[in-house]
Amino acid sequence: MIKNIAIVGATHGNEFTGLYLAKYFLKNPNLLKRDSFDTKVIIANPKAVKLTKRYVDRDLNRSFNIKDLHDESLSSYEDYVAKVLNAKLGPKGSKNPKCDFILDLHTTTANMGLSIVVSSDDKLTWEAIYYLCQIEPNLKVFRWLGDEENSFLDSITKSGFAIEVGAVPQGVLRADLFTKTKQLIYHLLDFFEKYNKNEISQDKKSLIIYDHVELVDYPRDERGEIIAMVHPNRQDRDFELINRGDPMFLGFDEREFLYEKQEPLYGVFINEAAYYEKGFAMCLSEKKEVEI
Amino acid sequence: MIKNIAIVGATHGNEFTGLYLAKYFLKNPNLLKRDSFDTKVIIANPKAVKLTKRYVDRDLNRSFNIKDLHDESLSSYEDYVAKVLNAKLGPKGSKNPKCDFILDLHTTTANMGLSIVVSSDDKLTWEAIYYLCQIEPNLKVFRWLGDEENSFLDSITKSGFAIEVGAVPQGVLRADLFTKTKQLIYHLLDFFEKYNKNEISQDKKSLIIYDHVELVDYPRDERGEIIAMVHPNRQDRDFELINRGDPMFLGFDEREFLYEKQEPLYGVFINEAAYYEKGFAMCLSEKKEVEI
Repeated sequence: MIKNIAIVGATHGNEFTGLYLAKYFLKNPNLLKRDSFDTKVIIANPKAVKLTKRYVDRDLNRSFNIKDLHDESLSSYEDYVAKVLNAKLGPKGSKNPKCDFILDLHTTTANMGLSIVVSSDDKLTWEAIYYLCQIEPNLKVFRWLGDEENSFLDSITKSGFAIEVGAVPQGVLRADLFTKTKQLIYHLLDFFEKYNKNEISQDKKSLIIYDHVELVDYPRDERGEIIAMVHPNRQDRDFELINRGDPMFLGFDEREFLYEKQEPLYGVFINEAAYYEKGFAMCLSEKKEVEI
Repeated sequence: MIKNIAIVGATHGNEFTGLYLAKYFLKNPNLLKRDSFDTKVIIANPKAVKLTKRYVDRDLNRSFNIKDLHDESLSSYEDYVAKVLNAKLGPKGSKNPKCDFILDLHTTTANMGLSIVVSSDDKLTWEAIYYLCQIEPNLKVFRWLGDEENSFLDSITKSGFAIEVGAVPQGVLRADLFTKTKQLIYHLLDFFEKYNKNEISQDKKSLIIYDHVELVDYPRDERGEIIAMVHPNRQDRDFELINRGDPMFLGFDEREFLYEKQEPLYGVFINEAAYYEKGFAMCLSEKKEVEI
């Protein structure tokens, strides 16, 4: 039985879709009222919102690993925010957390359309994803494993994922993506209602997902400076296959950098603004069928 | 005779096209070498670049009005930057400035394609624009008058304008727009070479431009909070005509806000990220033919 869920916006302060959806729901709580469970709405990083920045001191969505949550010597703004959110929604690892499911709302400058980023292997999480994919056939699922996924905000609870929509610039609202995200949230609430009424079939199901393989950095010079951009033939083509020999980057001097791996893989998070500083230009993933 | 021009990038620290073009030209000065004039390349706001922000304390591209340039009591980071740039390229109002022409490189999250934003009424400026429009028929010209245009960086000199390209998010490079901006710069250098050799005809010419009429703010509630977004039917349609009754904004509650003015006007800078805080959602302009 699902009793409490949390919808979190502005985990990154410059991602406006989640921020304004959270504000809207806080003003209109009746929109989220359902019979069988309660929904809490949270604006996760209010100071970053005020600054229209992703974060103040460190990326909040990389601040929830269990070690950091217990490290009292950490003193950045986000370290405190993470501890407070963990107490409010978790605590992480607890058998009796305050919240059963976290939905974290994100946007990306990559052309990922309407997508889910998930790291949990929990059954309820995947049942919810499966349900949403049946209603929204264009919804894509990217499983992020192998790079800090245990530090995501939605890792506080066993169940949860992020909605990731794009392309939209930081600090901008796009009505189309706002509306699609809002609808997906309502569908998710429907799912929990059905789940609580035992209306979700427990039969085996399968789903096509994009599974994280590796991160690809920009070409750089000896001083670490970027010397090339995502190639125009690659730009905006998230969830498309990249084959050996395909152009990946275009140098400032117009030199082309090609994809050299043997195995074709799918690009995701292509040219996300926030990842310039993290040092990657895109994620590579394999498309696979998973059983739920 | 044009002796010295300046190409300025990162007047806004999070607009990467100009920043990376400036870096590239600083590393490869031979690319800008021409027989009859010198070209200086400047990264205008290095601290904003480091922070990946538009500005540190105030918008540098609104910091060049003559009063502020002479006000020694102003103490923000950009006030000092503006004074130093004014000394380096001007001073503003001088009959013998250190620089004859300023090209300021900008990007926008609005879908403005390749465009020029100009406030100067100087003959040389308009000859240059005319020349570029002949080579690049898709180049649009927006004349910004009536709102702080005397505070723009390119107002230091009598001649100059901004190249404004989009849609591109802040903090992102798009190879297509980078390449188009680079080509436009080379064409402008060609123009100065021709101008210095008296190869530019002084005949009367005419040009289609978009002339600033007014700014339109987002619908807001009594507390000043945004309650609507640019309408999906308006989004990405810069330089297109808006007629009475056309949808302008879509409320978070899905209410539509229509265009109510009698006269049809053209939208520009639609949904630019940096203008949320300035309080406008788009500029309205009229399309007209001007004589040069």
